[in-house]
Amino acid sequence: MIFKNLDKTDAYARLLTLQPKDLATVLDKQRIKTYQIASAGGLTYNYASMPVDKQSLAVLQELADEQQLIEKYRAVLNGEIMNTGEKRLVLHHLTRGQVLDPIQVNGENKGDFYVAVLKKIETFSQKVRNGKIVGSTGKPFKTVVQIGIGGSDLGPRALYLALKGWCTAEDIPQLDARFISNVDPDDAAEVLKGLDFETTLFILVSKSGTTLETLTNRDLVLKAITESGIQGIQAEKHMVAVTSKTSPLATSSSLLDAFYIDDYIGGRYSATSAVGGVLLSLAFGYPVFAEFLSGAHEADILSLEDDITKNAALADALIGIYLRNALGLPTTAILPYAQALTRFPAHLQQLDMESNGKHVNREGDPLSYSTGPIIFGEPGTNGQHSFYQLLHQGTDTIPLQFIGFSSSQYGKDLVVENSTSQTKLNANLVAQIVAFAKGKKDANPNKQFEGNRYSSLLFAEKLEPRTLGALLAHFENKVMFQGFAWNLNSFDQEGVQLGKVLATKVLNGCEGDEVLKAYSELL
Amino acid sequence: MIFKNLDKTDAYARLLTLQPKDLATVLDKQRIKTYQIASAGGLTYNYASMPVDKQSLAVLQELADEQQLIEKYRAVLNGEIMNTGEKRLVLHHLTRGQVLDPIQVNGENKGDFYVAVLKKIETFSQKVRNGKIVGSTGKPFKTVVQIGIGGSDLGPRALYLALKGWCTAEDIPQLDARFISNVDPDDAAEVLKGLDFETTLFILVSKSGTTLETLTNRDLVLKAITESGIQGIQAEKHMVAVTSKTSPLATSSSLLDAFYIDDYIGGRYSATSAVGGVLLSLAFGYPVFAEFLSGAHEADILSLEDDITKNAALADALIGIYLRNALGLPTTAILPYAQALTRFPAHLQQLDMESNGKHVNREGDPLSYSTGPIIFGEPGTNGQHSFYQLLHQGTDTIPLQFIGFSSSQYGKDLVVENSTSQTKLNANLVAQIVAFAKGKKDANPNKQFEGNRYSSLLFAEKLEPRTLGALLAHFENKVMFQGFAWNLNSFDQEGVQLGKVLATKVLNGCEGDEVLKAYSELL
Repeated sequence: MIFKNLDKTDAYARLLTLQPKDLATVLDKQRIKTYQIASAGGLTYNYASMPVDKQSLAVLQELADEQQLIEKYRAVLNGEIMNTGEKRLVLHHLTRGQVLDPIQVNGENKGDFYVAVLKKIETFSQKVRNGKIVGSTGKPFKTVVQIGIGGSDLGPRALYLALKGWCTAEDIPQLDARFISNVDPDDAAEVLKGLDFETTLFILVSKSGTTLETLTNRDLVLKAITESGIQGIQAEKHMVAVTSKTSPLATSSSLLDAFYIDDYIGGRYSATSAVGGVLLSLAFGYPVFAEFLSGAHEADILSLEDDITKNAALADALIGIYLRNALGLPTTAILPYAQALTRFPAHLQQLDMESNGKHVNREGDPLSYSTGPIIFGEPGTNGQHSFYQLLHQGTDTIPLQFIGFSSSQYGKDLVVENSTSQTKLNANLVAQIVAFAKGKKDANPNKQFEGNRYSSLLFAEKLEPRTLGALLAHFENKVMFQGFAWNLNSFDQEGVQLGKVLATKVLNGCEGDEVLKAYSELL
Repeated sequence: MIFKNLDKTDAYARLLTLQPKDLATVLDKQRIKTYQIASAGGLTYNYASMPVDKQSLAVLQELADEQQLIEKYRAVLNGEIMNTGEKRLVLHHLTRGQVLDPIQVNGENKGDFYVAVLKKIETFSQKVRNGKIVGSTGKPFKTVVQIGIGGSDLGPRALYLALKGWCTAEDIPQLDARFISNVDPDDAAEVLKGLDFETTLFILVSKSGTTLETLTNRDLVLKAITESGIQGIQAEKHMVAVTSKTSPLATSSSLLDAFYIDDYIGGRYSATSAVGGVLLSLAFGYPVFAEFLSGAHEADILSLEDDITKNAALADALIGIYLRNALGLPTTAILPYAQALTRFPAHLQQLDMESNGKHVNREGDPLSYSTGPIIFGEPGTNGQHSFYQLLHQGTDTIPLQFIGFSSSQYGKDLVVENSTSQTKLNANLVAQIVAFAKGKKDANPNKQFEGNRYSSLLFAEKLEPRTLGALLAHFENKVMFQGFAWNLNSFDQEGVQLGKVLATKVLNGCEGDEVLKAYSELL
């Protein structure tokens, strides 16, 4: 494989000379039907409202080929050391439970390892859900609480909220799920005050077993259980861990059980591992989680396609490079028209910004071009009544990534003035895409819309487990491809280390304020 | 008053020539103690980690004077027509309930009007909370559900979450609050499935009384109550409205009561009006809401100060102009180190982006400079484990607005390894500010931090009602001052109209998909 910086490729020079297409001119029905890619889990990726054409797609294809994006993805799947900084394999694709090729590490077949973890999750979650494993006072578990932060929180939380309504509508028995993440003690206090500890199972999630926030919150939980004064309650029978084999938590005798991940799964890529799997399997049952994994795996397979007009994640990635580097647009908004995806943008914010928010290449050399964009978003139609004003008429252009579904999850709808709420939701989605793309001329400049506010759309029939898995993997693979194109290591996060180190220096130095003791004497 | 575009001012030309201060050189203890402003509600605004000095502050003061920012604020308070596009007064400051000067509109004293609404909220909320007003089957209300979107949702929701823990810790009796906003029918379905209708009071919030999402969700609620089959339940006895006097909702006989707002309160500025007041007074009691208002009013008064080194909102606004227009930084992150402020960034996102995301000035003439920035954010320390990688080491500089408190709300804390969680939280806050400002040299470029990632800090002893009111008003006034500096009308939102109009055109046109019927035949 050849690794080179984006600005050293031949295709990049050509990319910079491309003229963005004027959507007011080119966007028509034929284009909408042509500029789309059928993807996994019933998803379609439509990019008709992106400023590209056959010529620019050809250049993006050259870029994909020249940067060997698919070859590098195959190297990931083959277990090569693609996390260069930390000298690690990148194996989150294996956590879908569908082994492609055997990968051996220290005599262990990693595919078998992840499959064994899945099997253990299946057995354990079934026993909890059918009452064979109960709390220490003999009551069945009704609530699970995930204690974790970053990748151990955002992904699992977003996915839980995404499937809650679907499982309710499908009459799948549920355990209620809650989350404690922040080291702010009010986070734990707020969750704990409403809990019945006798029927609550805590999932302690930390790969290293040393995460400050998570261990502190564990201790707050243990204290609360102890102080509850419940006769005969044993805190250790109400807590499992998701951690690495070598972590202090793995061998802790004060836990009911432990589920393993390893160093080859980055936190932000861990939603399909035990990090998300234990919670989702307990809450909704293992079959729901398995369906979710199958959707992610299907997306992984489709992402192996070389042709960018047939590979949704690859096309999305390359169009993003065009927007970021040729058109100079630094931000992307994620706009799901589905309330169930309320926290999905926050997860993608982590996935993307932590992976590709880098100023050095995979060799550690400084870069002279822009890398990962700023990601933000809220569900529509809520966002329409909030920040869309700036998206439509602000002085900056912000590319948009819409997500939508034909059907609601609950199916509890009502015809008001001749249309259902779901129809209204999708009418708004369509109206926004067209309004952003084509704009509107008006004699009054305040009512004028310039148009050419670019967007793409990921669309499916319904947000169900398989679709959600495919949606997640789409973005994971998109971010990976962009990292390869920028010649980054998308799998480390050195930028979060300095703050951690400095925080330990000032502990207790900033009490009593006076502007936190003059920034704790500047450390 | 003189209104001119930012780039026509003398101060602007000087602003563009200023060299940003290198924080690695200038940031020291003395600067931290000097570059701060005591503000309302016990808040301090510290801007030592912003790239300004005496010289740049002098230029910013000139700009404030030249653009007559304080004079224009006084014009708002005096009831002049400062919402030029819609030809309206801008009276949200009056909703704090503390009248400055009498303002007459059509023979009505507006101060008296808002005070009367407050009085009505006080009486009604007391009667509900002490059981004098009960549900139609005779049971006391235990839950309130706000049905509203945009300004009728984001502010009230953020404020409710911000005070919930404080009220719990203070043993203030609470009604549980829920929110339905999205036209996605799954939003209502998810909230409704857990409700006991007999003890639930719905608050229908729409100024015009015609908001699509809100009326649709009202109908979904009424249907659910009817279909509940509860003996003797009368839906209309479980619903109040917050609306304008002239709206169809105001005179609806199918409501228990109505609380008025008027056209002079923009949705995003309505949190201190009945839009937030009915909900917060029902949930926590009117005295809590009154305290909150007093903090906002205190901030309003302090915002009248001409000297930017003594006016926190004004300084924050002008430094923001410097970052946006002179340094070319298009984004700002809001980073509260308080889990209770989890949705506060989403509210500020609306407040700022909907107010100042404009491409024309207050006369409707196109502008040739950048206006409102993109706003996003999540609470710390959560964000540290998510998007901070990009903030530290990405290729773009993103100014940061930190918020923090000495004490937690619940006070349920624990010493782990010699420090409490609250101490750890604030140690992280301090460590991040310094890490962003000063960076770190390292032989390994991947471990190098460039520094000069600018931040400010709003800090107080504890997040309590008065402090929260001051915090909210700080940002409202900041955004207003920036709008004046950019010569915008910060009080209209023409950019959200096009999508609304187009959505009604395609209703039912996009069912059955095929890429939503080829974008509904392009409308």
